[in-house]
Amino acid sequence: MKKGSPLYGVKPQVLKVPAYTLRACEAEVKLNQNENPYDFPDDLKEETFRRFRRRQWSRYPDFVPDSLRQRLAEFAGWEKDGVIVGNGSNELLQASLMVLIKSRTQVAIPFPTFTVYRLISNVLGAGVVDIPLNPDMSYDVDGLISKSEEAGAGVLIVNTPNNPTGSVLRAEGLRKILERFRGHVLLDEAYYEFWGHTAIGFLKDYPRLIITRTFSKAMGMAGLRVGYLLAHPDLAAQISKAKLPYNVNQFSLTAAEVALENIPRFRAAIEAVLKERGRLGEELGGLPGVKVYPTEANFFLVELPVAPRAVFDDLYGQGILIRDVSSYPTLSKCVRVSVGTPDENNRLLSALRASFNARLAKA
Amino acid sequence: MKKGSPLYGVKPQVLKVPAYTLRACEAEVKLNQNENPYDFPDDLKEETFRRFRRRQWSRYPDFVPDSLRQRLAEFAGWEKDGVIVGNGSNELLQASLMVLIKSRTQVAIPFPTFTVYRLISNVLGAGVVDIPLNPDMSYDVDGLISKSEEAGAGVLIVNTPNNPTGSVLRAEGLRKILERFRGHVLLDEAYYEFWGHTAIGFLKDYPRLIITRTFSKAMGMAGLRVGYLLAHPDLAAQISKAKLPYNVNQFSLTAAEVALENIPRFRAAIEAVLKERGRLGEELGGLPGVKVYPTEANFFLVELPVAPRAVFDDLYGQGILIRDVSSYPTLSKCVRVSVGTPDENNRLLSALRASFNARLAKA
Repeated sequence: MKKGSPLYGVKPQVLKVPAYTLRACEAEVKLNQNENPYDFPDDLKEETFRRFRRRQWSRYPDFVPDSLRQRLAEFAGWEKDGVIVGNGSNELLQASLMVLIKSRTQVAIPFPTFTVYRLISNVLGAGVVDIPLNPDMSYDVDGLISKSEEAGAGVLIVNTPNNPTGSVLRAEGLRKILERFRGHVLLDEAYYEFWGHTAIGFLKDYPRLIITRTFSKAMGMAGLRVGYLLAHPDLAAQISKAKLPYNVNQFSLTAAEVALENIPRFRAAIEAVLKERGRLGEELGGLPGVKVYPTEANFFLVELPVAPRAVFDDLYGQGILIRDVSSYPTLSKCVRVSVGTPDENNRLLSALRASFNARLAKA
Repeated sequence: MKKGSPLYGVKPQVLKVPAYTLRACEAEVKLNQNENPYDFPDDLKEETFRRFRRRQWSRYPDFVPDSLRQRLAEFAGWEKDGVIVGNGSNELLQASLMVLIKSRTQVAIPFPTFTVYRLISNVLGAGVVDIPLNPDMSYDVDGLISKSEEAGAGVLIVNTPNNPTGSVLRAEGLRKILERFRGHVLLDEAYYEFWGHTAIGFLKDYPRLIITRTFSKAMGMAGLRVGYLLAHPDLAAQISKAKLPYNVNQFSLTAAEVALENIPRFRAAIEAVLKERGRLGEELGGLPGVKVYPTEANFFLVELPVAPRAVFDDLYGQGILIRDVSSYPTLSKCVRVSVGTPDENNRLLSALRASFNARLAKA
């Protein structure tokens, strides 16, 4: 590569990383991004506008959004100085890895899981230790510990409930990991409201635990990008150094504040999703040749009797978007579907039936 | 440090970095953050609300905001594939450094300049080569080249107009740097609208040039965090790998689109600031014992006859916030003041006069 090239000097690890892409598809029924099918309530939208209208947009947001951090601390049951607010939880994951990854650091990551963990780790120059889930997609706790330790990993990232499998790391498993693994544990609780269990209780005894959460799922704010991190205050102070000043815009800060003042308002949507999760899981499981993995999140990993790509195309033709996850090494027969409204789920079920019938008849 | 400590394993460079802090001060007259004193126009705020009200907040923003990138490409006169939109330009600077900084990379940074360049470089593990401006605060082009090359720097970061000095790197100086320096040049044009000159014309011939810009200053959108980067498309593709998915929230994307559709509406505020800059510069220069450095931005670096901290306190007592920059090694007698509205500037001038009179009388 010649010196005049734009890429001369670019980090080799970055050149090797495949870009994270997503086909830009629009559809009437969006079941591909684990979004909340119930939007942020209208009156709370208007309240957010009302507060933000008064504010000068030309002024920077608060340097540290202290009132929001205080509210989050009370909501989560942790200390304010151990709370960081981010532009989505991914930013906080990135900031954490920025302060933890050194030149030879290995990051242990179960697979299959959320792709962005590997992407960030690689861009930051870390090696990745892949640790497979059990064949039934449950977490292999002993494997996580022994393989992380064998590789001398400095960080272990666990998503619970896990995207795209829906599996969870239960308290006893987490405790075992925290007792035995010597590095930092990054626990992504993006979907915790759909499970109802949190690891916050472990923060006090295990100061190398870092928990991230988001307003994108249960709180219906994916479009606004707000996440938060909970950690030991000393560790949070270091991670804050990797977080850019004014990382969350004032509009999203305002919406998050409105949401936190109205937490009970978000309960109905969560309950509706949980109820539909039960029904959808049963109906999906009743489809011939389909295997549904157990989930504690707002989506299902589903093994199909027909090639996932073909089913994806059939559904997309019907205005329904799902996620084809068949490119993950162990998920070649699988798709991931978010739990939608009852009507959306019904459309999904009939479109799946039609697709299977057509495809299996042809075969 | 014991293994149970939250900081065991944290990158030593990060532990050494001082946290970037800012006293949380509120005041009636804010001349401390180089913000636009004229807010985003009211009717464009309402148009932004109107468009955003229709949108489901629970849905993720567009994966790649293509229509905004296209508009930015047309506005800036560059190719869409060489445009990245960011959560403020700092995020794009950070992403660029993430793909350019390797284990032994040195980053050359003039001083004094915007503190965040050093912060990001250090957190990412790079060494920093400090290159002083000339005593009159102009850029020492030959020094920048020779000292960067001597240190084998991989990246040179230049802010033009420069915060906090207001100095600019003119076309001939930049061309010389691009011809002779072998690394990447990161050019931060955050204040370019107040100068009127841009380096975009150099992008075609110099593929290692990266330009960042922001909606925070001239466009009156500091609270919304929108920036953009212009670079060779191949380089932009690599930098994009370090940018997180959904890095800009949908509200800010919407506001940026509204702003770009109404560019001429922002001209009057820029003209008003430029006119006041002329007047304020003259009046500041007429104060006894005051030295005003030439500026092409919306702020002045001002050398005072009295200790900056004392003047800061006096002004703050009058409801006026300025930036005390006396902790920068070469600026021990200086403050930075943003250009405000005529009324704000008048208040600044009389408060300065009163402070000097009181302090000098006491001395």
